[in-house]
Amino acid sequence: MRLRNKPWARDFMAEHSDILVAEPEKMNDGWSSLFGNKNPIHIEVGTGMGQFIIGMALANPEVNYIGIEHFDNVIVVALEKAIAANKPKNLKLFRANGADLLNIFQSNEIDRVYLNFSDPWPKTRHEKRRLTHETFLELYESVLRTCGEIHFKTDNRVLFEFSLVSMSQYGMKLGYVSLDLHAENIEDNIMTEYEEKFSLKGQPIFRLEATFKGK
Amino acid sequence: MRLRNKPWARDFMAEHSDILVAEPEKMNDGWSSLFGNKNPIHIEVGTGMGQFIIGMALANPEVNYIGIEHFDNVIVVALEKAIAANKPKNLKLFRANGADLLNIFQSNEIDRVYLNFSDPWPKTRHEKRRLTHETFLELYESVLRTCGEIHFKTDNRVLFEFSLVSMSQYGMKLGYVSLDLHAENIEDNIMTEYEEKFSLKGQPIFRLEATFKGK
Ligand SMILES: C[S@@+](CC[C@H](N)C(=O)[O-])C[C@H]1O[C@@H](n2cnc3c(N)ncnc32)[C@H](O)[C@@H]1O
Ligand SMILES: C[S@@+](CC[C@H](N)C(=O)[O-])C[C@H]1O[C@@H](n2cnc3c(N)ncnc32)[C@H](O)[C@@H]1O
Repeated sequence: MRLRNKPWARDFMAEHSDILVAEPEKMNDGWSSLFGNKNPIHIEVGTGMGQFIIGMALANPEVNYIGIEHFDNVIVVALEKAIAANKPKNLKLFRANGADLLNIFQSNEIDRVYLNFSDPWPKTRHEKRRLTHETFLELYESVLRTCGEIHFKTDNRVLFEFSLVSMSQYGMKLGYVSLDLHAENIEDNIMTEYEEKFSLKGQPIFRLEATFKGK
Repeated sequence: MRLRNKPWARDFMAEHSDILVAEPEKMNDGWSSLFGNKNPIHIEVGTGMGQFIIGMALANPEVNYIGIEHFDNVIVVALEKAIAANKPKNLKLFRANGADLLNIFQSNEIDRVYLNFSDPWPKTRHEKRRLTHETFLELYESVLRTCGEIHFKTDNRVLFEFSLVSMSQYGMKLGYVSLDLHAENIEDNIMTEYEEKFSLKGQPIFRLEATFKGK
């Protein structure tokens, strides 16, 4: 979802550095001090246009949320939405590659990682780019606290199959699996952009929760 | 699938004790000696009318197969089919409850456990009867050799979700997961009776392979 190039985006982003963190790898005092409280911190890797993370921030003021998105042209849309939602105090956004998590967070700093409709990278030779590949699981394990959870939703069957095996082989434990989320009673489910699109088409949405064994 | 009561069944079964083992818990010399070779032994718990286990026995003469079914009236149909298939030498059947596996097999005697379209027992209070409940996983772990595998197929979404979590929480590792078996290239898949029925209706078939971690 690379949106069209937005030349004004950089200036606009700089203006709203209270919510869109400009240099996330320079947060030496830790994220709790930026939020100004010790509430749990939940991050989303691959936030896209931000509907999920903003919805979560509004619904759960006692949790701090951070949306991480690779592309300027995408995160700027999330920023517009966050502004329209009056910049929730418990929300930050920044542009980064999920592969750089260890430069941005200290170990045990995070309570939950959300992955929503991550790019499927269907070719085997691109397997390492899937956000549930073991190279990414290692990063999540490092930044997550004991008992910290990964919550993952997708419409992509093959990515979900891959993720179940990848997490299991890594030694993670599944706490919850749904193979048709919208067939269940999910009053508190906050939909992502992709989830709306695919569930309207009648496709099943897959969801899992998993923890690291040693943690 | 309790079939109609068959009063002649007991006599018929006794006549074919070369393939339908009458007292499986009295196999003191072990199953390899009954088969007369050291080939790997694969069992199916809840064999139903036997289409799968007979098909497997015919397709893989270098593996010994044992079909286990709770009900006389059902296993007698499997017996009829085994006779029609000329009683493959690498096939045995017997009537038993899967809960009694430890009375029937020695530890490490079995190489693979097949579970196909196991009864879903949808009510939570019947959870313990599901063949992937931890109480059954304990039995499989005991009779399976190191690296022995469980192969499980079902059309039942909720049972599959339950099984993924149950196996994961038990410490098992998933080696393979398919959430739509018949969408894949599965030339060597042998269909069970239930699989034929449900896949014809267009329902996805779920399949997994798992091992015990310590094993
Ligand atoms: C398919 S979209 C889904 C967006 C949103 N989560 C949703 O469910 O609607 C995936 C998003 O993840 C972003 N993304 C993919 N790989 C990433 C990575 N390694 N680090 C950060 N973002 C990534 C992409 O730029 C894209 O915006
Ligand atoms: C739904 S049928 C499926 C039959 C066959 N596997 C198939 O896929 O067509 C389940 C079978 O498992 C048998 N069964 C259920 N629980 C069992 C247990 N604890 N021990 C042995 N057999 C069992 C039932 O009697 C029934 O024949």
